[in-house]
Amino acid sequence: MDIKEILNQVKNDEKSVEEALKDLSNLPFEDLDFAKVDHHRALRNGYPEVIYGEGKTKEHIKKIANSMNEKKSNILITRTNKDVYEYIKDINENIEYEESCNIIKIYNKKVDINQKGSVVVVTGGTSDINVADEAYHTAKFFGNDVKRVYDVGVAGIHRLFNHIDILRDARVIIAVAGMEGALASVVGGLVDVPVIGVPTSVGYGANFNGVSALLCMINSCASGISVVNIDNGFGAGYLASMMNKL
Amino acid sequence: MDIKEILNQVKNDEKSVEEALKDLSNLPFEDLDFAKVDHHRALRNGYPEVIYGEGKTKEHIKKIANSMNEKKSNILITRTNKDVYEYIKDINENIEYEESCNIIKIYNKKVDINQKGSVVVVTGGTSDINVADEAYHTAKFFGNDVKRVYDVGVAGIHRLFNHIDILRDARVIIAVAGMEGALASVVGGLVDVPVIGVPTSVGYGANFNGVSALLCMINSCASGISVVNIDNGFGAGYLASMMNKL
Amino acid sequence: MDIKEILNQVKNDEKSVEEALKDLSNLPFEDLDFAKVDHHRALRNGYPEVIYGEGKTKEHIKKIANSMNEKKSNILITRTNKDVYEYIKDINENIEYEESCNIIKIYNKKVDINQKGSVVVVTGGTSDINVADEAYHTAKFFGNDVKRVYDVGVAGIHRLFNHIDILRDARVIIAVAGMEGALASVVGGLVDVPVIGVPTSVGYGANFNGVSALLCMINSCASGISVVNIDNGFGAGYLASMMNKL
Amino acid sequence: MDIKEILNQVKNDEKSVEEALKDLSNLPFEDLDFAKVDHHRALRNGYPEVIYGEGKTKEHIKKIANSMNEKKSNILITRTNKDVYEYIKDINENIEYEESCNIIKIYNKKVDINQKGSVVVVTGGTSDINVADEAYHTAKFFGNDVKRVYDVGVAGIHRLFNHIDILRDARVIIAVAGMEGALASVVGGLVDVPVIGVPTSVGYGANFNGVSALLCMINSCASGISVVNIDNGFGAGYLASMMNKL
Amino acid sequence: MDIKEILNQVKNDEKSVEEALKDLSNLPFEDLDFAKVDHHRALRNGYPEVIYGEGKTKEHIKKIANSMNEKKSNILITRTNKDVYEYIKDINENIEYEESCNIIKIYNKKVDINQKGSVVVVTGGTSDINVADEAYHTAKFFGNDVKRVYDVGVAGIHRLFNHIDILRDARVIIAVAGMEGALASVVGGLVDVPVIGVPTSVGYGANFNGVSALLCMINSCASGISVVNIDNGFGAGYLASMMNKL
Amino acid sequence: MDIKEILNQVKNDEKSVEEALKDLSNLPFEDLDFAKVDHHRALRNGYPEVIYGEGKTKEHIKKIANSMNEKKSNILITRTNKDVYEYIKDINENIEYEESCNIIKIYNKKVDINQKGSVVVVTGGTSDINVADEAYHTAKFFGNDVKRVYDVGVAGIHRLFNHIDILRDARVIIAVAGMEGALASVVGGLVDVPVIGVPTSVGYGANFNGVSALLCMINSCASGISVVNIDNGFGAGYLASMMNKL
Amino acid sequence: MDIKEILNQVKNDEKSVEEALKDLSNLPFEDLDFAKVDHHRALRNGYPEVIYGEGKTKEHIKKIANSMNEKKSNILITRTNKDVYEYIKDINENIEYEESCNIIKIYNKKVDINQKGSVVVVTGGTSDINVADEAYHTAKFFGNDVKRVYDVGVAGIHRLFNHIDILRDARVIIAVAGMEGALASVVGGLVDVPVIGVPTSVGYGANFNGVSALLCMINSCASGISVVNIDNGFGAGYLASMMNKL
Amino acid sequence: MDIKEILNQVKNDEKSVEEALKDLSNLPFEDLDFAKVDHHRALRNGYPEVIYGEGKTKEHIKKIANSMNEKKSNILITRTNKDVYEYIKDINENIEYEESCNIIKIYNKKVDINQKGSVVVVTGGTSDINVADEAYHTAKFFGNDVKRVYDVGVAGIHRLFNHIDILRDARVIIAVAGMEGALASVVGGLVDVPVIGVPTSVGYGANFNGVSALLCMINSCASGISVVNIDNGFGAGYLASMMNKL
Repeated sequence: MDIKEILNQVKNDEKSVEEALKDLSNLPFEDLDFAKVDHHRALRNGYPEVIYGEGKTKEHIKKIANSMNEKKSNILITRTNKDVYEYIKDINENIEYEESCNIIKIYNKKVDINQKGSVVVVTGGTSDINVADEAYHTAKFFGNDVKRVYDVGVAGIHRLFNHIDILRDARVIIAVAGMEGALASVVGGLVDVPVIGVPTSVGYGANFNGVSALLCMINSCASGISVVNIDNGFGAGYLASMMNKL
Repeated sequence: MDIKEILNQVKNDEKSVEEALKDLSNLPFEDLDFAKVDHHRALRNGYPEVIYGEGKTKEHIKKIANSMNEKKSNILITRTNKDVYEYIKDINENIEYEESCNIIKIYNKKVDINQKGSVVVVTGGTSDINVADEAYHTAKFFGNDVKRVYDVGVAGIHRLFNHIDILRDARVIIAVAGMEGALASVVGGLVDVPVIGVPTSVGYGANFNGVSALLCMINSCASGISVVNIDNGFGAGYLASMMNKL
Repeated sequence: MDIKEILNQVKNDEKSVEEALKDLSNLPFEDLDFAKVDHHRALRNGYPEVIYGEGKTKEHIKKIANSMNEKKSNILITRTNKDVYEYIKDINENIEYEESCNIIKIYNKKVDINQKGSVVVVTGGTSDINVADEAYHTAKFFGNDVKRVYDVGVAGIHRLFNHIDILRDARVIIAVAGMEGALASVVGGLVDVPVIGVPTSVGYGANFNGVSALLCMINSCASGISVVNIDNGFGAGYLASMMNKL
Repeated sequence: MDIKEILNQVKNDEKSVEEALKDLSNLPFEDLDFAKVDHHRALRNGYPEVIYGEGKTKEHIKKIANSMNEKKSNILITRTNKDVYEYIKDINENIEYEESCNIIKIYNKKVDINQKGSVVVVTGGTSDINVADEAYHTAKFFGNDVKRVYDVGVAGIHRLFNHIDILRDARVIIAVAGMEGALASVVGGLVDVPVIGVPTSVGYGANFNGVSALLCMINSCASGISVVNIDNGFGAGYLASMMNKL
Repeated sequence: MDIKEILNQVKNDEKSVEEALKDLSNLPFEDLDFAKVDHHRALRNGYPEVIYGEGKTKEHIKKIANSMNEKKSNILITRTNKDVYEYIKDINENIEYEESCNIIKIYNKKVDINQKGSVVVVTGGTSDINVADEAYHTAKFFGNDVKRVYDVGVAGIHRLFNHIDILRDARVIIAVAGMEGALASVVGGLVDVPVIGVPTSVGYGANFNGVSALLCMINSCASGISVVNIDNGFGAGYLASMMNKL
Repeated sequence: MDIKEILNQVKNDEKSVEEALKDLSNLPFEDLDFAKVDHHRALRNGYPEVIYGEGKTKEHIKKIANSMNEKKSNILITRTNKDVYEYIKDINENIEYEESCNIIKIYNKKVDINQKGSVVVVTGGTSDINVADEAYHTAKFFGNDVKRVYDVGVAGIHRLFNHIDILRDARVIIAVAGMEGALASVVGGLVDVPVIGVPTSVGYGANFNGVSALLCMINSCASGISVVNIDNGFGAGYLASMMNKL
Repeated sequence: MDIKEILNQVKNDEKSVEEALKDLSNLPFEDLDFAKVDHHRALRNGYPEVIYGEGKTKEHIKKIANSMNEKKSNILITRTNKDVYEYIKDINENIEYEESCNIIKIYNKKVDINQKGSVVVVTGGTSDINVADEAYHTAKFFGNDVKRVYDVGVAGIHRLFNHIDILRDARVIIAVAGMEGALASVVGGLVDVPVIGVPTSVGYGANFNGVSALLCMINSCASGISVVNIDNGFGAGYLASMMNKL
Repeated sequence: MDIKEILNQVKNDEKSVEEALKDLSNLPFEDLDFAKVDHHRALRNGYPEVIYGEGKTKEHIKKIANSMNEKKSNILITRTNKDVYEYIKDINENIEYEESCNIIKIYNKKVDINQKGSVVVVTGGTSDINVADEAYHTAKFFGNDVKRVYDVGVAGIHRLFNHIDILRDARVIIAVAGMEGALASVVGGLVDVPVIGVPTSVGYGANFNGVSALLCMINSCASGISVVNIDNGFGAGYLASMMNKL
């Protein structure tokens, strides 16, 4: 390793302090501890590796997955499809495909469930389920006790209230909604924990593929709400997991 | 009157049917009954006259108001201000100025209250009151029993539920809200009557001066909701009055 | 039923008032009358049940429709298609498919026509018919006398005037228009009843899939107009029905 | 003059044809007739000179106006104000200020009125008058017989029909409207001549400072309509004048 | 005919003038001359009939075309395709299909060419040709001498200047351009006649399907320019024809 | 209390179970435990009360603050100003005004600092400080150990790295940035804890008052980031506090 | 040639200087040197010819390419596809197809590499490669030493720092990024040379097909950055080449 | 200095290589050469220091300027005003204020003019001068030979051609334009050097404060153009200077 070498040269008077200083300032960054950041989450926390599948060929995904599999990581592949699953399913027998949200999960070790409390995923309608399940399976794969409360949109608000105990027991809530996206506000007003809003592109016309729900959530007058990108179920699940580890 | 004259000429054989036909088809439209539409609402229904004050000088408003006053109409002046009020207040002793929503009301006859039922105006927050009061005073001036339920936004939804009996007794509801504008959806889910959504420009940042609330309301997954322009309290009050007369 | 049980326990001194109080405040909301909201429209008003077909599989739709059919409800399925119709048509012999607007109607009881007056659906052009028919069939299915006045856009305004008597007899008017969407304003100026504007995505270029018509309608200088989402024929038909019941 | 000089040199055999060719292709463009374009409209057609006043100091405007005045041009100054008028009014006694549209007119010669026919300016409401008057005075200053038909918006369409004879006599129509801007479409459907739509920023909320009217006009289903920038009364008046000269 | 009947009744004293007046004011508009507007352009000017083909089935188009064909009108069908052409081509042997712009032309009478002057269609690039040809064939079909100057965009401005004589001879110019759409401004600065800007959806990325070109043209600092909808070649050709008739 | 009364009546056989059931389902919601939600955060958690000052008069604010002060709550007034401070400062001697972010703080009890860890507020530039200080003072007032790392924008990324140890010690990070708003992504890539992005309206031109930063943050490719409204420092501080309590 | 002829006529006294002047001012522009601009880049600099393939048929492309090929130019065809390649590949044996970015390259002469320094193309993610390769191959084809540093997005910023020496050696850097597009800012802060930002449409939801990255780059607080259109790899490569020739 | 100290400790055997390694990886970044980036441009290139004046108090600016002045840097203060100038002008007698673009320049050393060639700033209109002068003075202050060619917009394109020799002599061109912003495209087609487009907010209506010009420039079909933020004269001047140093 280069820094070590430089230090040894200084120690052995083979290099002056001034030369060493100059060498150090030119060193590529990968030689510093900082440069190890790349893998530090997986390494430090036993976090699974994640492959963002969109726009990658099945050959490409198999190659990456294989390399991760050899390190005995758990692997989550998002935005993928059944074809990819069929193509790669022989790399590990502990592989599962979630059709509702196009996620592949590969297990090399048992997932320990975080005992601090639960993450709850609520949706406004049945059409939001694809996005919600992406959040659900992500949070679960990262070791959380996750509960689903689906189809409890604000236009029939008693449906939400029927599950108020589950909401109140949660440590983190993910509110997934399209159309007017008001669910996050209502949930935010009912609980004392962080609510992650996931606007979905569900709807038509002036929903502008999710902009209406995004604006609704970002303008929420309830406190404790923050928002991720439209249809970003994975991001919400990952962030919820991060919060639940606090 | 020209048509009468033509008909008389036909009757008296001073004009052939063919000539009369040609004359008629060239007549300016104001000579037909249709052209009387302009005043027909006020005439037929005893509806008050309305002056849209924005962009008009006080001299201009006084002139119009005077002319209407002479016809003994009730007069509503919207988007006006105290200066205008001071300038015109001598034209009729039964004149009132509503400071909260910049409306002037002039009475030449008693307003009969529609006995079919009530119009209810609900708001999300206290900042929506200016717009809501425009709706309130408009609907009242047009002869409705109007009730106000203010500051019952969805982020603290129990506040809304505390007034659910008033909502359920209404024939028409006006839901006024800025920021995320989710109030209309929640109200729409609780009642069986038309809900008029009024998005307001209240908020900041990504509310885009009311666009967030407008999109939220227009994308509502609750049925029975329709929307008027941002901050258009008058329009909502007028429409509610029209519905309540059905 | 739980509340009843609690009350009986109180009555029989098996539970103290204090314990009962605590139990009641923890009861899931579905045990309160309020929680019956879910079905109350259909129950109270004999309203048909509605299934929003978009994004649902035919198997899923059949299951829901079967369950509703068993309750002898009339059922409206919107945003569906002929395939679904073929797949489910054996569940009830009184089933109809409206190809122009992709609606399926299932009858378990005769629809009584509201005698208070008519709902009129007008369109700007022939391309708006799909959306207009969704409104037409919805309003009809909900028991209204509905009339159609199609292809009477403002660029040839005499076409509209040819039907002015039908417009003037209506209790509620639904104005369906794409492109510049000016129809709602013109109609609003001709009548004294509520006009529901339905912007459509018909057009090209700077119509932005219906935004031009939406903005036109929401900015209407005619009073008595409110707007629903782009292409939301169902919403307009449902709301018109609600108004016509007032 | 340089080209002349080169030609004289060729004529006098002081310069070879080849050298002359080279010189010519290097000549700054202003030496060609084409380069006189700058003033050619005023020169050829006796068109007035125009000064766009916005963002110019009164000293700057006075200097430009003086220079034009010396050439005995008629001068139109747009988007100016009374201060500028007071400051420059001594440069020519035939100077007028139009307060309604902030235009200054300086006459050095009599304006001959185009006898081919009239230009008509129609507006939707009274608030559109500032923009409409800019069009009116521009077209008049450029020598057209211009008529005004104001406050005939589509929400009370009989008002427009009352003036249908004036519209039908026009060679060019300028339709000025804010809010929903539907006037252009209706007028376009009534006449056989070009209609220039001028969207105005009049309105509030979702009019987005004139975008609603612009979109409405640009999406018009009536043929024969084209559109200029929001509030661009001058552009419409100038273009109408150009058309009326055809 | 009803009016005639009423007049005859008055003439024959079968109806009083008062009754006749009342009848007349209730007459449907179609009985007035005004109601003939629908066909007046074609009738008065020998203008061809136009069918907007988009969204119409071939059966529907054939039916409309047949009816028009029987009246011996010339017929222009826009936004159609080859299938429609094949399906309807037997209705008249003088039928032509323009593949470049999906227009069908049916001739029942010879087109007389307007001798007042020419219409010129210029485009920025070769990809704008589809739209430009729609304008070209429309203007030609309506009896104009039309010239094409294609692929002369401002990024190689000498190409435009090579054809400056054609531009300067035109009575009306149609400038068709996508991407930055600057062609209209440059042409507008070179000529003294009206320029109709047609923004096209040609381009990618931040062209937003023609919005960039539309904004460019509508903000042109050159006078004498007005704009039609994105890709609206027909509208430009029709308007140019209207102007060229002035 | 009504429920208690009803229960007592049941207990004493003064009311049948059926009557009691009916009474209960009609009870206004405020009589249920749920209706206490309104104050439950402050009550349960000793959370301070918050007054959103924007759009409220100083008299109004004083009245609200007085009422809260009597309950011995700590009070945070946001979006206020020095005038308000001067007007209300006599209500409690433990009152402070933070000029940088227009916050007033009133203490009735000592703030206990959460010992779990720190919240860090980072900003891209010095102009983001107003928003950042709103977050800072909010989080501090709610009992957090808060650190500030200001002016460490990504265009000089070494400035951020100089404080990497502070970032890595944080439990929650608030990233405040205007212009391109890239700070949140870079920070998100460096740490394992939730990052709350606060886009600011700082910048000019195509920043569209904060839209550029909002879009940048919401599209972040770093995991663990969520976003609040433009300039919503309070929301971020409150949410960070909520997370830090987990 | 016409000018020559005119000059000869002047020389030979067959034309007066005045007549010649008039003739010259009417000459079409193509007769001037200026009109040769069209081919001057290729002619003067040995620059390759470029064919923009989008929207052109393979027959059309082959025809253009053949004509250029005969002039022995190097030819770059962008936004093409494999079909076109197969169809035209026989026109020159030195033809190559780059599948990653749909570019065809035809060589008639050896490309000399610019020795002044390198152009570096960096990307945020692997999905940006298509666009980046368009830039890479363009710059290379135009004679630059081009280096690629891909997948070094700001969410894992050490990856970028690992290649800081390559960045610091560059004369021009092309930063290609989708999603939040922050790469350009970070790179701009690290180097002293021009950075060309290429926003890509990579991402989903509120990336609005590249608008988020475009806004991020155009609002960069780093100096030395300018931006080209979304996905415009060719434009960036061409501009970089132009800069590198300075 | 810390690194030096660590190295000396290693050299003197006061610290083991392992301990030194650990220390180094924890060192704040400012201790590395990389951390000097902050000032490296000024240091390495003799570049002036820049203060972005917007949003800073005059006291704040004076303090920063004083500190820079002590280092004998040349200092450029942008987006400032005359008040600031009056307040700070005593810090250095070689201070100048440019009123047209609100820039203050402080000289501690003579500016050496880059002899490689000129930077040319062109504008579309006179209203663009403020932004253009910011670019002009910035580029000049950074040591460039800068020429101005103002008011040569495309609507009178001969004005631009009159200065074509200046454009063709430039090494870098800055094209500043508002409204339709077409200037950049035309200039880009005339020259072989990089063109930096600066859209300005000049215009009204659908210019959307510069968006029209921005879209026009970013969609330019001319090659060699890139764009900076709306009104960002400084950014363009700085980038031009960077390019001119290549």
